Amino acid sequence: MSKFAMYGKFKAQPGQGDALAGILLEAAEQSESVAGCELYIVNVSEEDSDTIWVTELWSDAEAHDAFLRNEDAQALIGRARPLIAGVEPVKLRPLGGKGFR
Amino acid sequence: MSKFAMYGKFKAQPGQGDALAGILLEAAEQSESVAGCELYIVNVSEEDSDTIWVTELWSDAEAHDAFLRNEDAQALIGRARPLIAGVEPVKLRPLGGKGFR
Repeated sequence: MSKFAMYGKFKAQPGQGDALAGILLEAAEQSESVAGCELYIVNVSEEDSDTIWVTELWSDAEAHDAFLRNEDAQALIGRARPLIAGVEPVKLRPLGGKGFR
Repeated sequence: MSKFAMYGKFKAQPGQGDALAGILLEAAEQSESVAGCELYIVNVSEEDSDTIWVTELWSDAEAHDAFLRNEDAQALIGRARPLIAGVEPVKLRPLGGKGFR
């Protein structure tokens, strides 16, 4: 099974970018103990503080899906949902490069 | 100086996605020896094989700019230019997460 990569583009409700980024950073904290997660980096757009981008790289799609199903991640998703105006996943096929083991 | 992160979204000329990705992978190879470069991952969009995304993370903006100025990178840019229909940098402020030292 090939590696799974994506950018998660989150548009927060007006003025909620910081709060949403905080929750996504908690998700990043949770991912530290997940072997299949190689990258989970939270970024804010330089042009819009209510647009949050998450850079994700996983050993495979199953590792990503399992992470989303676990209880702690579900609790975070529940807290984040009211802060989110829109989500746009940019699905990628990683080819290689620096930082890609 | 804070870390510099961006996604480079490249739209290749029709049918030139693979060729463009190949040149960007050469740039990734060059970045291996560049201390200030932490991530340079080349991805192809799952939805469009002529859209190539590069995930970049640098120690600071100066390291990124210096890389682009060097001769080898300039040679690659020269080779890539005819293959590129459009470039859209997504400029980011990285906040933290897994894979962000």
